[in-house]
Amino acid sequence: MPDAATALTLQDKLAAAKTASTALATATTEQKHVALLAIVEAVRTGAERILPANELDLANGRENGIGAGLLDRLRLDQARLDGLAEAVEVVVGLDDPVGEVVRGRALPNGLQISQVRVPFGVIGAIYEARPNVTIDIAALAIKSGNAVVLRGGSAASHTNGVLVELLREALVSAGLPADAVQSIDEFGRDGATELMRARGFVDVLIPRGSAQLIQTVVRESTVPVIETGAGVVHIYLDESADEAMAVDIVRNAKVQRPSVCNAVETVLVHSGAAERLLGPVLSALQESQVTIHADERSIGVVPGALPVTDEDYATEHMALELSVRVVDSMDEAIAHIRSFSTAHTESIITNDLCNAERFLREVDSAVVMVNASTRFTDGGEFGFGAEVGISTQKLHARGPMGLPELTSTKWIVRGQGQVRG
Amino acid sequence: MPDAATALTLQDKLAAAKTASTALATATTEQKHVALLAIVEAVRTGAERILPANELDLANGRENGIGAGLLDRLRLDQARLDGLAEAVEVVVGLDDPVGEVVRGRALPNGLQISQVRVPFGVIGAIYEARPNVTIDIAALAIKSGNAVVLRGGSAASHTNGVLVELLREALVSAGLPADAVQSIDEFGRDGATELMRARGFVDVLIPRGSAQLIQTVVRESTVPVIETGAGVVHIYLDESADEAMAVDIVRNAKVQRPSVCNAVETVLVHSGAAERLLGPVLSALQESQVTIHADERSIGVVPGALPVTDEDYATEHMALELSVRVVDSMDEAIAHIRSFSTAHTESIITNDLCNAERFLREVDSAVVMVNASTRFTDGGEFGFGAEVGISTQKLHARGPMGLPELTSTKWIVRGQGQVRG
Repeated sequence: MPDAATALTLQDKLAAAKTASTALATATTEQKHVALLAIVEAVRTGAERILPANELDLANGRENGIGAGLLDRLRLDQARLDGLAEAVEVVVGLDDPVGEVVRGRALPNGLQISQVRVPFGVIGAIYEARPNVTIDIAALAIKSGNAVVLRGGSAASHTNGVLVELLREALVSAGLPADAVQSIDEFGRDGATELMRARGFVDVLIPRGSAQLIQTVVRESTVPVIETGAGVVHIYLDESADEAMAVDIVRNAKVQRPSVCNAVETVLVHSGAAERLLGPVLSALQESQVTIHADERSIGVVPGALPVTDEDYATEHMALELSVRVVDSMDEAIAHIRSFSTAHTESIITNDLCNAERFLREVDSAVVMVNASTRFTDGGEFGFGAEVGISTQKLHARGPMGLPELTSTKWIVRGQGQVRG
Repeated sequence: MPDAATALTLQDKLAAAKTASTALATATTEQKHVALLAIVEAVRTGAERILPANELDLANGRENGIGAGLLDRLRLDQARLDGLAEAVEVVVGLDDPVGEVVRGRALPNGLQISQVRVPFGVIGAIYEARPNVTIDIAALAIKSGNAVVLRGGSAASHTNGVLVELLREALVSAGLPADAVQSIDEFGRDGATELMRARGFVDVLIPRGSAQLIQTVVRESTVPVIETGAGVVHIYLDESADEAMAVDIVRNAKVQRPSVCNAVETVLVHSGAAERLLGPVLSALQESQVTIHADERSIGVVPGALPVTDEDYATEHMALELSVRVVDSMDEAIAHIRSFSTAHTESIITNDLCNAERFLREVDSAVVMVNASTRFTDGGEFGFGAEVGISTQKLHARGPMGLPELTSTKWIVRGQGQVRG
């Protein structure tokens, strides 16, 4: 089956996914669980098939000189396969969103209307060379009753090829159509472009990866897109901020995992608290090897700080780098955030109730926080289980996305012969 | 102010709308009601300013030879102004969606998270020469805390110019920024194109009008779009359909208002009921001057029917025209719907419970009905008050849209110093 599949055109595959999506949409939760548990088993015990393909990708990657970070994300081993299998088990444990009645009522004329969650149909995913995304997205799509068309990074193509085989076999073992999972890696960049234009075949496209990848998809796609990810994240240290809390939260938000989108990139500090807070905060960061990019008013606080630029303010470093700016008012802090934030997550550290409420109200980001680390913007932390991504757009989904965000709704109207007067 | 405004560039206007949107977003419901009631007053008593501008548009329209239907949609008089004012009064009576807590919980670590409705920010609207849309959309945008950028049909430009003046004056009288309502009619087609590309300034774009207009916006826009409208709507007469119900519902769905998107375009009838039902159904339609496009198996039922084509099946006639096809099974009916429907509304007329449930489950349209006229797919009928439009896409909103569909959400996280372990 996988060999025959490589002879298909991309259009064939999209059409097959669309056809298969109707079977997925009406599958019961039990049936979907049989498929998901087959995936768990296949991933956990599939090292013999998966790891040689992964070795091939790694060898090609080393030959092509891709970076150590990328190679690490690409690499699979038994421990990582176990982790992947566990992630799918978590998905099994989540509530099935399909069929949930969102709202409903009886109209004055006796019609009963109800709005019910239904799968999108076909989800497209465009992502980079991280094989775990292949399994994650497919598991989330299957659980939410969707077919999925996957376009992974070419550096992971051999690994993804085997993973997609396993996924399709698992569907068949549950009596569901293999075609509900499709890989279009073999069509290269043209395939990705075609996927972005496949309106009518793909109901929603989710890009996961670098800001550049996401922006390309947003710009090129005629299929509705859920924009995820890029985080130029701010923490504002208000005049009344507690020192220990400021130190702990800023350090946690920058250092605990600097390569992710919810890590802080810029600290704004009220001038009335700069002298009290900046020393301890920046010293703690330097102890953790963070490079400080400081404005004129803060550059003297710690030795070795670099002068900050507007480009720094606009950059998602994903590394141990932090910009610092002193502001004279919350107005100035909010204005800075409006200029430079990607509207992902911002947090205020304060003990002033009015300021806290004002920050929550006026800062228009997917997640706004008081006295908490920005690292909590995460589907797992929010209790959604496995995460689809973090939406930074305002349409359909905003912030961490769980299974319900992979569904649409439809209205069901039950009548007894009513006509409109 | 309106005179000065005409000297602004489109970019100026978009930037001004974005700035004004922050004031609208934090305005109280009371403040927004002051503005809306000022609009009611201005429209109801504004004939002296509005009607001469409307006369000018009508005269130009007649000179340019635009059709009688279009001229009628364009025309305002005191009765229509009263109707428009009443529609805004209805909006005042609707619940303000902003600030609604959609869901929330305490996390195990003590963080309190809640998802709260917030305005989109700036809504763009592209529509045709119907001045009522100018008032409708602006009122809905203001009530939901959004700024709005309007691009109406050029045939209504004088009328819209005056209406936008009135809207802006009403905002100012409520202490809200005039710039929250912007017209970009003076920038012509290029302006519309620029609006579609104004990602970062416009949060969502809503096209209202012909299928062609909507498809252009969907194809060209990089701003997220809510696709509305086009309805190739089906009624399926199941074998067990009651004759009187079939006649009443099909006639109502076709004849009561043929020019709207929820009017039926194709009737599918089970072969086992064709002989019993088609005569009465088609005769009733012909009595109402409906032209019948019939397939081979039904063309002999009534005199004067035309042979149906695939193009007929795919067409939203918006007129007294109906396609008819005999099918041998519900499978065939559903397959026909999958091929030709725009996934707006479909209804089954039946007394068979299993068939009803199957139709509701398997037909993937925004609204699916049993034993009801498709004309009920309407925000007013659903109890949403004034309607934003009917979404035929799956992202964000599906089916009739009310005020909540003009909002996004944000997550609010309240902590006491939590950091991630």
